[in-house]
Amino acid sequence: MTLRIGVIGTGAIGRDHIRRITNDLTGGEIVAVTDVNAESAKNVVSELHLNAKIYENGHDVIKADDVDAIIVTSWGPTHEEFVLASIAAGKPVFCEKPLATTAEGCKRIVDAEVAHGKQLVQVGFMRRFDKSYRQLKKIFDEGKVGEALVVHCAHRNPTAPGFSGDMAITDSFVHEIDVLRWLLDDDYVSCQVILPRNTRFAENGLQDPHMILLETKKGIRIDTEVFVNCKYGYDIQCQIVGETGIANLPEPQSVLMRSEAKLSTEIYVDWKDRFIDSYDVELQEWIDSTVKGEMNGPSAWDGYVVAVTSDACVEAKHSGGIVAIELPERPAFYDQGNNKVLIK
Amino acid sequence: MTLRIGVIGTGAIGRDHIRRITNDLTGGEIVAVTDVNAESAKNVVSELHLNAKIYENGHDVIKADDVDAIIVTSWGPTHEEFVLASIAAGKPVFCEKPLATTAEGCKRIVDAEVAHGKQLVQVGFMRRFDKSYRQLKKIFDEGKVGEALVVHCAHRNPTAPGFSGDMAITDSFVHEIDVLRWLLDDDYVSCQVILPRNTRFAENGLQDPHMILLETKKGIRIDTEVFVNCKYGYDIQCQIVGETGIANLPEPQSVLMRSEAKLSTEIYVDWKDRFIDSYDVELQEWIDSTVKGEMNGPSAWDGYVVAVTSDACVEAKHSGGIVAIELPERPAFYDQGNNKVLIK
Amino acid sequence: MTLRIGVIGTGAIGRDHIRRITNDLTGGEIVAVTDVNAESAKNVVSELHLNAKIYENGHDVIKADDVDAIIVTSWGPTHEEFVLASIAAGKPVFCEKPLATTAEGCKRIVDAEVAHGKQLVQVGFMRRFDKSYRQLKKIFDEGKVGEALVVHCAHRNPTAPGFSGDMAITDSFVHEIDVLRWLLDDDYVSCQVILPRNTRFAENGLQDPHMILLETKKGIRIDTEVFVNCKYGYDIQCQIVGETGIANLPEPQSVLMRSEAKLSTEIYVDWKDRFIDSYDVELQEWIDSTVKGEMNGPSAWDGYVVAVTSDACVEAKHSGGIVAIELPERPAFYDQGNNKVLIK
Amino acid sequence: MTLRIGVIGTGAIGRDHIRRITNDLTGGEIVAVTDVNAESAKNVVSELHLNAKIYENGHDVIKADDVDAIIVTSWGPTHEEFVLASIAAGKPVFCEKPLATTAEGCKRIVDAEVAHGKQLVQVGFMRRFDKSYRQLKKIFDEGKVGEALVVHCAHRNPTAPGFSGDMAITDSFVHEIDVLRWLLDDDYVSCQVILPRNTRFAENGLQDPHMILLETKKGIRIDTEVFVNCKYGYDIQCQIVGETGIANLPEPQSVLMRSEAKLSTEIYVDWKDRFIDSYDVELQEWIDSTVKGEMNGPSAWDGYVVAVTSDACVEAKHSGGIVAIELPERPAFYDQGNNKVLIK
Repeated sequence: MTLRIGVIGTGAIGRDHIRRITNDLTGGEIVAVTDVNAESAKNVVSELHLNAKIYENGHDVIKADDVDAIIVTSWGPTHEEFVLASIAAGKPVFCEKPLATTAEGCKRIVDAEVAHGKQLVQVGFMRRFDKSYRQLKKIFDEGKVGEALVVHCAHRNPTAPGFSGDMAITDSFVHEIDVLRWLLDDDYVSCQVILPRNTRFAENGLQDPHMILLETKKGIRIDTEVFVNCKYGYDIQCQIVGETGIANLPEPQSVLMRSEAKLSTEIYVDWKDRFIDSYDVELQEWIDSTVKGEMNGPSAWDGYVVAVTSDACVEAKHSGGIVAIELPERPAFYDQGNNKVLIK
Repeated sequence: MTLRIGVIGTGAIGRDHIRRITNDLTGGEIVAVTDVNAESAKNVVSELHLNAKIYENGHDVIKADDVDAIIVTSWGPTHEEFVLASIAAGKPVFCEKPLATTAEGCKRIVDAEVAHGKQLVQVGFMRRFDKSYRQLKKIFDEGKVGEALVVHCAHRNPTAPGFSGDMAITDSFVHEIDVLRWLLDDDYVSCQVILPRNTRFAENGLQDPHMILLETKKGIRIDTEVFVNCKYGYDIQCQIVGETGIANLPEPQSVLMRSEAKLSTEIYVDWKDRFIDSYDVELQEWIDSTVKGEMNGPSAWDGYVVAVTSDACVEAKHSGGIVAIELPERPAFYDQGNNKVLIK
Repeated sequence: MTLRIGVIGTGAIGRDHIRRITNDLTGGEIVAVTDVNAESAKNVVSELHLNAKIYENGHDVIKADDVDAIIVTSWGPTHEEFVLASIAAGKPVFCEKPLATTAEGCKRIVDAEVAHGKQLVQVGFMRRFDKSYRQLKKIFDEGKVGEALVVHCAHRNPTAPGFSGDMAITDSFVHEIDVLRWLLDDDYVSCQVILPRNTRFAENGLQDPHMILLETKKGIRIDTEVFVNCKYGYDIQCQIVGETGIANLPEPQSVLMRSEAKLSTEIYVDWKDRFIDSYDVELQEWIDSTVKGEMNGPSAWDGYVVAVTSDACVEAKHSGGIVAIELPERPAFYDQGNNKVLIK
Repeated sequence: MTLRIGVIGTGAIGRDHIRRITNDLTGGEIVAVTDVNAESAKNVVSELHLNAKIYENGHDVIKADDVDAIIVTSWGPTHEEFVLASIAAGKPVFCEKPLATTAEGCKRIVDAEVAHGKQLVQVGFMRRFDKSYRQLKKIFDEGKVGEALVVHCAHRNPTAPGFSGDMAITDSFVHEIDVLRWLLDDDYVSCQVILPRNTRFAENGLQDPHMILLETKKGIRIDTEVFVNCKYGYDIQCQIVGETGIANLPEPQSVLMRSEAKLSTEIYVDWKDRFIDSYDVELQEWIDSTVKGEMNGPSAWDGYVVAVTSDACVEAKHSGGIVAIELPERPAFYDQGNNKVLIK
């Protein structure tokens, strides 16, 4: 059975998902597309040789009879609307981050999904599908380092063109917020944000780096250095300090060189080189599980937790204090299945 | 367009190729199968839910009108026969190693293919499709270490159940024979085999390890330690020493651990963990290029060169001397396309 | 010229210093010893074949005409008394940590030394003499990573027999307090102590691990995980995150092994294996500089800063808040010479 | 007791040994020096503030009553003469390599020493005193990799100014010849030299690199790449492949950097940075053992074996064949004590 997919938003990432589903993945077919820029939708259909109908707007895509599932890759502020409509139509929906632009918006989606009675929403946090994070989770889940006590992370970009305000939290750190909960199978209770000496490379009044501290229900303490103008490369680090040992996120596989008086491996500069493979895995698993009527990726609830936590971090950054992260109880509805690692 | 594939031989590897083409890859469909053991073919069809016809024998598969391309995964001594029949039928054929059990057999295939006038045969040397070898080749092709002068290799298996006689050469080292020509874009002119002190873990009178020396046309010297009872793991090493630097085959990506007074990464024990991904790439690229009417993988000529080189190494092992590796000139027919690296 | 040294305290570390000065180092000779346990002093003299006079007490050692310089390795609570007496006698004195058991005691020493008008006191913080810290400082001082913004540290012991109360700070973390000021050429302004989930291996009600945050005058933020029951080894980490790159404290030099499905190097279990060489360097440089009339190691002021900072960390641990680290202005007296790196 | 040492030859290395014995080591004093260039000897005495007598020639140094032991650091062709004279005088002698310029010359020294009846000669092969080789030997001797089967080595210099003819063997590879016998506790029976494609950076008609194969009595096979214009650094590699695992010579301790899209450690460019510490250890142990009347370093016999093996390698290089390495039986005289590892 082929999953017939409608895509709302054919900008950079929408187009890329269409390309990978069409050329690289199995089991899915793009049958409907739309974009606020009608020309963009037309171009994608013709350039990628899609056998897809072009719709006026997202709601028509969602309603189309031959569309089994929806991918929302439109402008962020429209996500909530289309996800809610997909739920109303009872169709599975994959929504790129953010699930909604506010925590309240995410909560409305959670409530609608719970009311609907069946899990339909997956949020596009792709790190859970990254091979290196899965290797780390496997080691951790096997108990190779015992119970986690402390986690040290770093999220470093070489430069951050266009970054301003709190984007180091709302655009970058949100990935850690999602993946660490999944990795540790735990939830956050408080956060604190420390502002180190600023790099001279930070522009537009940006604070850079940040040191963000999270406390979990189990008492695990996580420190993350978010440094978006680190100059030297795109570098994601994660180290779990457990009761009996320590496990580090693997470095990407690279040729070991001896040249110019250095023994070296490469560090990526572009985040795409680091995570591009995980998009393939993410969408393939979404197609496969959707066909089976399952939902295994980051849920609407996960998207909501990220939004609440991100808000708390922004508040903590500005207040300088320790901010509680308060969530309603997780609906039992979300209990099963969200924390799987699939490594062949 | 979907490539309709007939598979001759549904043993372990045949079945595995069928599974990956059916479940994991795109663009190919298994429409015909056969096996000397009719029950095996029947089981594969039913267990993998294939929509495939079961044939009496390989020749019927090859002749079937709805079969576009053939995969030969039958018993080694039958390979030559089915590959020749595929050529006679003008159908692309992917043949697992060995292409034929003798160099003469390989030569007959080369001659038939040249006479046919179009390249149809790909041999199943999967290392050319391995990500780490491609990373190494990319660095080398970009001139990052200058011209190659010396290459140090190691091919180590933890144990070698069932190994006897010259299998360390004919079963293991053949992979280096193929991949190093491709990596260096060079050909061999002589070989020598040195027999070190035997490990106490070698059984059945097996010599283990071997040190095999190859000389190329360009004068590059390659030493390979083939050690099939090394106990500690499955470990493939390749180091290119160039005029300005050295490049090493990447170690597989692995969690860095601090535990039990060791800073460590994992070494695989099973060869499948090391090379399983390359089978997916190999077959996907075979399907894709076949659909486009191209042939990019190891050719019949490559299979022939491996056979001649392997024979020379066996002779050198027994004589203790330096043995010339003599080949007829490569037909111009094989000039284009066999040496590509495809890394996204 | 040979420096004639009197040693007050012939317990484990005193005896060890005597042995190294006598057998391994140059330019110093032990001419006087004393211990509260007279038998201990006698044994050291006879077992190490010293040509040294045994005195009744530390004050007699300090007063002895043929004693040029003093080493204080007696019980901690007696340090202040003997260091003050050495200053009163105008004799250079090397005092093992702590300089005094209270910050006030340290301050009295600083005041006495300033009043005396010549720097005489060196405190036994040996990390400044460790080869790996000096390699890191050299790279940092050469500007290889630009200005420091964040520093990540870890201080891990496999087990902590006898640890209780705040010893993770007062016995372990004091080393970081000293060495990081020296490394960064900066001073602390505040601290915070976070208490992660406790390891099940912590005994006697010990909190373990701690995460200790320091802020410097320049705004550098330092996080240190102090984990004294980490089980896996004795492991000291330090990573300077600068504006253009990152430098890590070198791992100790170790044989790279391939065995039992692991690629590994050794992690020390005993702190002595990690730092024993730095004692040799420390004492040799103390002898050499003392003979030249200089004083290059950690000063009385440094000892005082460690005491004040350690007190603030203990307070921060118990209060849970951010505690200011307040110091009087550093006497100009201490301006020169305390921050040198000597690598041959 | 202080060892009173006379030094014959105050050129670069002689002067350096004098400096280290005078300033850095314990237990030895330079009391006599000479050089064919009288001015050189005079300068060394005055610049290093030695309390040493300047002699007309080496024989006067050897005969001097107040000289307990001799260091021969004169021009290579004079070594044999001064070593023989030292033996005749019954005085311990440390001779820089070569022991003599011919194997016959070395043999004459061995014969003289055996006739004298007491071991007096140590040859200046410093790698046995290098910390990293001792770490490797310790692991090997403890059986951590089982019996050695194959050893892979590399000896690489960035450039080789002044190298010509067979100096890659006679000046560089001799270090491997000595240290590998010691490491493996084995002897050589044959050698072969393979000439790879030449680097374009080789000058003066130099062959570069060489691949040199050694076979030992136990059947261990050693391959060494000697590459003296490798450009990228001074790099010494040694990997013991044993029955159960593999042990590599440690890389020198170095700061791990993240900068400019590379994760890197430093490779030395100057051999002195790599081995300078081992000279200190070598001479300190020579002084200590000489004072005790022992002889633990490379013996005259070891120097003779190196000369015979080096000659065989040169012959093998020119003949292209496998050359037997034939030695008389080792005099029982040399049985004890030459193979110790001393790591604190």
